[in-house]
Amino acid sequence: MEMANEWSRTALLIIDFQRDFFDERSVFAVPGAYAILPSVYDALECARKRGMFVVWVVREHDPEGRDVERFRRHLYGSGKQNPVSKGSIGAELIEGFEIKEGEYKLVKTRFSAFFDTNLHSLLQATGITDLVICGVQTPNCIRQTVFDAISLDYHSITVLYDATAAASVQIHHDNITDMENVGVVVVRVDQWDGSVVEPLPPLPTTGNVVSAGK
Amino acid sequence: MEMANEWSRTALLIIDFQRDFFDERSVFAVPGAYAILPSVYDALECARKRGMFVVWVVREHDPEGRDVERFRRHLYGSGKQNPVSKGSIGAELIEGFEIKEGEYKLVKTRFSAFFDTNLHSLLQATGITDLVICGVQTPNCIRQTVFDAISLDYHSITVLYDATAAASVQIHHDNITDMENVGVVVVRVDQWDGSVVEPLPPLPTTGNVVSAGK
Repeated sequence: MEMANEWSRTALLIIDFQRDFFDERSVFAVPGAYAILPSVYDALECARKRGMFVVWVVREHDPEGRDVERFRRHLYGSGKQNPVSKGSIGAELIEGFEIKEGEYKLVKTRFSAFFDTNLHSLLQATGITDLVICGVQTPNCIRQTVFDAISLDYHSITVLYDATAAASVQIHHDNITDMENVGVVVVRVDQWDGSVVEPLPPLPTTGNVVSAGK
Repeated sequence: MEMANEWSRTALLIIDFQRDFFDERSVFAVPGAYAILPSVYDALECARKRGMFVVWVVREHDPEGRDVERFRRHLYGSGKQNPVSKGSIGAELIEGFEIKEGEYKLVKTRFSAFFDTNLHSLLQATGITDLVICGVQTPNCIRQTVFDAISLDYHSITVLYDATAAASVQIHHDNITDMENVGVVVVRVDQWDGSVVEPLPPLPTTGNVVSAGK
């Protein structure tokens, strides 16, 4: 019997890490996406070492746009760009990333990874109570997944600050702040994976100590 | 038979307009809430005149906190503040507002008015395709309701800029911008109710016309 470890109840969700969210020719391109590639890679490697459940959340749309949000439906159809359409190169994971055995691919068609998907029942069935979230982009798919996770009573929800991105640093930061205001834990990947140990608080200087003894 | 008018497919959602979201002694108080009272009143009166379906979305919680989001559960229980708990004065609508005959009270326990409620089936059953949203507060209950409405394919979603509020003007504004970026219509109440007609664009000055004719 495999022993449960301290990470057996925690899943890593990697959201929308697909070519069309990176390629600047795509209408879905997130300007901050390329910059977080190394951090997401580090988070993924750490999750794998810890034996965590890894869920790859991806968008895949009907090329006719029938399952796309209304405000984006005009981008789909014959002769249109059809971003992340099912089976297209743009819907593939960005290069350098692949789904390994035991990991799970979850297809969604809306911002939240929980909306009209089996994600919650999947996580319940696998005993997951805690989530760590990375990917793109902060105000939409990241945030809506986070807020649904709060509503669904996950015990803790962690957003990896430098492994999530938006159209601008300001938008990213504002959304992170809103999420912190509703109890979300926000850390850098090097804090989460333990590769950087926070420095101890500084000791009182000799001067102060002498002063206090006077 | 009552004739359908141009507003028969549009509902006004007034969100969390309850005492505990106003009273500064409450942990749920939204600092910007009092300032929007007149605008929300105007929007409500306009919706009633137009014969629109009005839905009062309110939070009501178990005094033991069993139906509260985990990050707020510590506020509930014997001797605690128990904000908007069922049957308490704090859960009542803010003074000056009341639910009239034909309007609908919808109780929710999460940010989004759609989460674990009958709102979507109610709106489908009444032929509603368009939503106008006001109340508190912008980054949480307003925004989550809006994003779920997008995901549920409502045809248009309008947020009344001066009839929604947050902890600060900056937070309000940042969240409004994020919502505009996903196709949400944002207008002031006096634009929506027609009490202010936008001025026509300025005519070219005589000087310019003369100049162009040279």
